This record gives sequence, C-alpha cells and structure tokens, in this order.
Amino acid sequence: MSHISEPTVRRLSHYYRVLEEVAAEGKWMISSHLLAEREGITSAQVRKDLSSFGSFGRRGLGYHVEHLRQEIRTLLGLDRRWKVCVVGAGHIGSALLGYRGFADQGFDIVAVFDADADRVGRTLEGLVVRPMAQLSARDAFEIGVIATPARAAQPVADALVAAGVQGVLNFAPRKLRVPDGIMLRNVDMTMEFESLSYALTRTTAARPRRKRTRRAP
Amino acid sequence: MSHISEPTVRRLSHYYRVLEEVAAEGKWMISSHLLAEREGITSAQVRKDLSSFGSFGRRGLGYHVEHLRQEIRTLLGLDRRWKVCVVGAGHIGSALLGYRGFADQGFDIVAVFDADADRVGRTLEGLVVRPMAQLSARDAFEIGVIATPARAAQPVADALVAAGVQGVLNFAPRKLRVPDGIMLRNVDMTMEFESLSYALTRTTAARPRRKRTRRAP
Repeated sequence: MSHISEPTVRRLSHYYRVLEEVAAEGKWMISSHLLAEREGITSAQVRKDLSSFGSFGRRGLGYHVEHLRQEIRTLLGLDRRWKVCVVGAGHIGSALLGYRGFADQGFDIVAVFDADADRVGRTLEGLVVRPMAQLSARDAFEIGVIATPARAAQPVADALVAAGVQGVLNFAPRKLRVPDGIMLRNVDMTMEFESLSYALTRTTAARPRRKRTRRAP
Repeated sequence: MSHISEPTVRRLSHYYRVLEEVAAEGKWMISSHLLAEREGITSAQVRKDLSSFGSFGRRGLGYHVEHLRQEIRTLLGLDRRWKVCVVGAGHIGSALLGYRGFADQGFDIVAVFDADADRVGRTLEGLVVRPMAQLSARDAFEIGVIATPARAAQPVADALVAAGVQGVLNFAPRKLRVPDGIMLRNVDMTMEFESLSYALTRTTAARPRRKRTRRAP
C-alpha cells in the first residue's frame, strides 16, 4: 500500500479509537455512519478511507469490529512496542509520563532526562530523572519526545538523533531541523485553540441577527 | 465563504505559523512551495486552499506575507480575544497556563478551577486556583478547557456549558457529550504518537533489505 497522507492517518487513529470503544461494549459490527461520528468526517469518507486498504463493509451490516481494529492496528504500527524517552521533566513531560494511554497503544516511556540539576535524581511516575549526559545510543531508544522550553529544543533534537532515535515528537513551540530519514512530528497546542476559534467565529457569524426595529418611513 | 473542513483549518493554522515566522524575518513575499514545507502538504494544495478564499499568489513572486497573514488571522477568528478558563490544575492544566503562545494568538486564560481542596487557593502562573463552585456564568467565559482526569470530564463539561461557554477543548481521554451549538474539540496526544508510529513503520518497511548471499547453485 502506498503512502497515506497525514489527515488520513489522523482519521485512521480516530476510527481505531471508536473501534476500541465499541469493542469494549461487546459490539461485533459497526456502520460507516457510526465510525464517521466526528465533525468533518462523512460516512462516504470512511468508506473511501477503508476501501483504500481493501476493507469493505457489508451493506446493511457494516464493518466487522475486531477484524477492522486489527487491520488499522497493523497499519498504524501499533502491533509492536516502541521504546520512548522523554527529555524535559517539567509540566508537559510530567503530563506525558502520567498518561497511561501511551503504554496501552504500545509506547513505553522508559526514561526521562533533564538538563536541570535540581530535577535530576527525582522520581517521576516511577522513573528517576536522568542527566542529559546519560542520553546515549546504549539505551536504543526508538522515539524521543521533546518537552523542553523552546530555546533548548534544537540541541535536544540533535542529542536525540545522535543517540539513534528514528522519530522525534516535539512539544516545544519551535521549528526543528532533523536529518533526512528521521521522522519529526510537532504538537502545537495552539492549533487546537485555533480550530475552536475558527468554529466559534463561523457559528457566531451564522447566527441570525436580532431584528432591528425600523422607524416608520 | 462556506464551511472549511477540519484538515483545511489545520493547514491554515500551519500557513499562519509559517507566515508569522517569515514576517519576523522581515520577508515580504513567500512562495507556495515554502508555505507547503510540511509532510503531506504540496504547493498545489497550498494554492488550492488559498484560492478557495480568494487569495491568489503572483507567478514567480508568490504571496504577500502581511496581506495573507491578516486574511488567515481573520478567517481563524484570531483578530479578537477569547476569554478562556481551565478546569484542572494538574500537569496538563499547569502546562497550558505556562504556555505564553496562547495569549499571543488571542486566547486569554483568565481563570483556573479545581475540585481538589488541596489545590484551591494555590497560585499557578499568577492565577489563584478557584473551587468548582465558583464556576458560573458571572465570569462570561467563552472557551472552557478540560484538563481533568477522564472520570471527571463529563461533569466538568456539563458545568462549563451551564456556565455559558460556547466552546470546549477537551484534553481528558474520554468522549464527551455537549448540547448542539456548543463546539467541542478533543486533543488526543496518543494520536501524535500514532502518526509517528505509522511513519516509522512505513520507513522501516521501505528500507532496502540487506542482500542475502546466495549459495552458488
């Protein structure tokens, strides 16, 4: 199968989330309509996305939940475990370490590093914060997460690449350079606010204006 | 202009980010190629997105940076300020309060609430954590951010709606119900990991296999 665009990958993630929920409820089949259940996704889009990797629902029955869940799981690379380290033991780093959902999807955060001597040695969610000097290829991390202030982000990215990570997830609000062949994803929380702001602006604009009382001519 | 899909809004956010960067560098014009600079966006997509709201680049010159920045700013509803409150003074809440970028885009976090009596009264980034009982329509919040554990998310969403917010940004890993007319956006950090995992799986699969030494027949 050829390259899938990032928006498609996001939709697959969304379908996967819905499939996990309905599987937990003990359901066997799901309609494209129910899979679509999110603003901006139509059931036609769902059928297009899923047929592109050969998964076809049955008219009137929908998709087989467990079968589809396994297919998307494999496609997203969730049928294996990833060894993840986090750099930055501040608020975002702590939030990431505390979030159990990552381990459920195969992302094992196994180490946390910080440049601040005051933070090194503290225990955070069961992990001892390690000094940056210990970030090396010895640990064979596959994904490195940057949860540092903006100014530190590029040197940290370089250190992660030197330590052999294949992918970098950047939470710092700075554009980073990584060598070809290293995957980089940026998480920009402002974007979520902007998406909300866009939607709110449209709704407000679409609301019927209050009638003005005109004076009789 | 009609409704824009969520992926398009995300791309507009991305273009806006790039335009702010090049404006800061003092550039006047930008090419669609430079605006595209992200995986999954082509310069043809940029031209399509921008022409859809009547912005056309000039061949060989590109787009006028300041003009386009203002246009996207208005479209995304960033030319005004939004009054935001955060519920949950834990790691994610603290990370949000500490992030200066929100205020730069017009999102003013003016209050933070928590159900935990131990947190109430503490000062976090200049704001005193308030008890949930004080969350009311009196403050006229426009956007409410949920940064609580999953089990608390739905009651908090209900409380925010009762307090009159128009939009909800949910960081808790739970699907929420809000009344029609209230905008809801979910931020799922696992999705970013999944996007990376997908990309890494593809790269690994695409790498040329090491040649096997065949025995002579």
